[in-house]
Amino acid sequence: MERKVYLDNAAATPVRKEVIEEMMPYFDREFGNPSTVYDLGSRVKAVIDEQRAKVAELIGARPEEIIFTSGGTEANNLAVKGIAFAHRKKGNHIIVSAIEHHSVLNSARFFERLDYEVTFLQADEYGLVDPNRLKELIRPETILVSITHASNEIGTIEPLAEIAEVCKENNVFFHTDAVATVGNVPVNVKELGVDLLSLSGIPLRAPKGTGALYFRKGLRLMPLMHGGIQESGRRGGTENVPGIVGLGKAAELAKAEIPAKVSHVNALRDKLVNGVLEKIEAVKFTGHPENRLPGHASFCVQAIEGEALVFMLSSHGIYVNTGSACASKALKTSPVLVAIGVPAELAQGSIVFTLDINNTEEDIDYVLEKLPPVVDRLRAMSPLWGKAKPQAA
Amino acid sequence: MERKVYLDNAAATPVRKEVIEEMMPYFDREFGNPSTVYDLGSRVKAVIDEQRAKVAELIGARPEEIIFTSGGTEANNLAVKGIAFAHRKKGNHIIVSAIEHHSVLNSARFFERLDYEVTFLQADEYGLVDPNRLKELIRPETILVSITHASNEIGTIEPLAEIAEVCKENNVFFHTDAVATVGNVPVNVKELGVDLLSLSGIPLRAPKGTGALYFRKGLRLMPLMHGGIQESGRRGGTENVPGIVGLGKAAELAKAEIPAKVSHVNALRDKLVNGVLEKIEAVKFTGHPENRLPGHASFCVQAIEGEALVFMLSSHGIYVNTGSACASKALKTSPVLVAIGVPAELAQGSIVFTLDINNTEEDIDYVLEKLPPVVDRLRAMSPLWGKAKPQAA
Repeated sequence: MERKVYLDNAAATPVRKEVIEEMMPYFDREFGNPSTVYDLGSRVKAVIDEQRAKVAELIGARPEEIIFTSGGTEANNLAVKGIAFAHRKKGNHIIVSAIEHHSVLNSARFFERLDYEVTFLQADEYGLVDPNRLKELIRPETILVSITHASNEIGTIEPLAEIAEVCKENNVFFHTDAVATVGNVPVNVKELGVDLLSLSGIPLRAPKGTGALYFRKGLRLMPLMHGGIQESGRRGGTENVPGIVGLGKAAELAKAEIPAKVSHVNALRDKLVNGVLEKIEAVKFTGHPENRLPGHASFCVQAIEGEALVFMLSSHGIYVNTGSACASKALKTSPVLVAIGVPAELAQGSIVFTLDINNTEEDIDYVLEKLPPVVDRLRAMSPLWGKAKPQAA
Repeated sequence: MERKVYLDNAAATPVRKEVIEEMMPYFDREFGNPSTVYDLGSRVKAVIDEQRAKVAELIGARPEEIIFTSGGTEANNLAVKGIAFAHRKKGNHIIVSAIEHHSVLNSARFFERLDYEVTFLQADEYGLVDPNRLKELIRPETILVSITHASNEIGTIEPLAEIAEVCKENNVFFHTDAVATVGNVPVNVKELGVDLLSLSGIPLRAPKGTGALYFRKGLRLMPLMHGGIQESGRRGGTENVPGIVGLGKAAELAKAEIPAKVSHVNALRDKLVNGVLEKIEAVKFTGHPENRLPGHASFCVQAIEGEALVFMLSSHGIYVNTGSACASKALKTSPVLVAIGVPAELAQGSIVFTLDINNTEEDIDYVLEKLPPVVDRLRAMSPLWGKAKPQAA
């Protein structure tokens, strides 16, 4: 096998060694149930609360504002459903952007089956949501606005502080899916002005199956998982203690490392973007050119199927994504790309690179060496190639 | 510190060494996202499906009938809410027993806030649910019956096959919370005749944060976690791969070991029960005398607070439970004990022992040596002791 270049860090990451080490004792030595009154349990309860403080610290929240979940998807479901069910008396209207992750989009759509109304707010060609347009859509019965901090498909970072201002003025709860940002950029919930924020362990290199929801103190929230009194009654079920310890450790490590990571991955990203646009014709760079996730590069390659491209690159040891990882088998065309006006045919050629601190210049050189001939080969087989060229210029 | 005798295996268990070893590669080596199309991901997808087959095998199901969850609580929420939301057109009436775990009870209560009706079916003094009484409660608009396989608080194993018969005759879906039984007794979903069954990794000595829902093939179910197409669209979110691998390995190991475990823990349990009833006066053995979980012994000790007893025993290295682990801090009096007619005052003295294969005769001797003087000491401080004696005789 040749070189391995992993550039799909938004989809999955290897758990950090320090994180695994920190978790290990909680599988078989410190295994008590945190809800029990004896030392085996109360020790573990205290450890969970230490992790809560670490996660809170990473995003500028208070420890009691953090609910541990089984991942970003659960956090998004808890936010949307938790607010919608708890505040039904106030209203029945929800606004979400059209470029949300499936966990937000489908949570919102679920309420269309009940007696709620959902408005899907479009984004512009760069993937930006317009706070003024949002203001126009808010009605007296609007209870929740959910806008992603950044979509992993196009990388655009949304103007959350301005959106939060609009929500506050109109007395509407504001949730953001920050799964793509927490761990990749500095995030502070108070500065952003959000009421709820979802995060995942994956970008932090914590284990799969970990995540958290920030909810502003005092907010009423219907649990998604009814049960015991864990997480102050907001999320039943015996806590995933090793996972929580892993998330806490990863959050602690990330806090200090983000600035260095940002400059490292952005330098590599620039090299990658310039190289791709220079070496391959009829490629559209998607998302916002400046306001975007560090280390994130997304393109649509004309006349090519994204999955075929991903598959062929993997045969060279290069791992990248197409569309949203969670939806890659559900839909051929990414709804996010369609929402920002990319023609369906071009959107099928979606390819997404998400870099991490471990990537090197040599990795990018290798991609820039292997990618153009792979594109050429796929285009040679494509009936679309030739007639479609101008679209992506 | 003295001897350690852990008899709270229903609340938490140390993960087995073989299970931890099996999980390890999936943290940092085989870390691909199972939804990706390339080898790093598709290998992991195949591994998940192998675990699905192992869990299915343990309970006599087909692999495609298993949905992995973040634990028993999520499985119970998914079952109750998944059926109630998906089959609203058929009806709006749910029946659950009064001795269900909080995750079932509170999921059902959640629907009382919507346009549903919930009936709580009482159990008899031994904790048995009466299928004939259930039959009387079923109405044309009944869509779901949820009766636990066994309550961890009192150990009584319910007559599921008879209950399933009643549900089938009346065209009502039947869910059972089998968190207390799977791993402790042989369970076969086809023999039991259930439509849905929840299980947890904890009794299998798999990690916390793991579990599964069995749902009969073809059943329509609203997801609890909306999102991507993981778990055939029934549970969004990147899979907790290490956890799933742990659950699969634990299920595989459990299958062969259950018979030996049952006879071992039942012999110790008999010794424990006989010793307690012989050495301590005014103690009520709760639950059914024969139809009960292996290795499960539950009592109410007159004139004593269960939590104080648990705490004092832990100072001797003996770990036991009182009431439901998940609710131990929520309520002083167990709703399960109240539901089977134990007077509230006596119910406060609840103590529950759950044994595992690793427990020994010496463990039980040690408990029988330490427990009576601890009870004496607590009673000496109790204003209730003396006048209340006859109740528990």
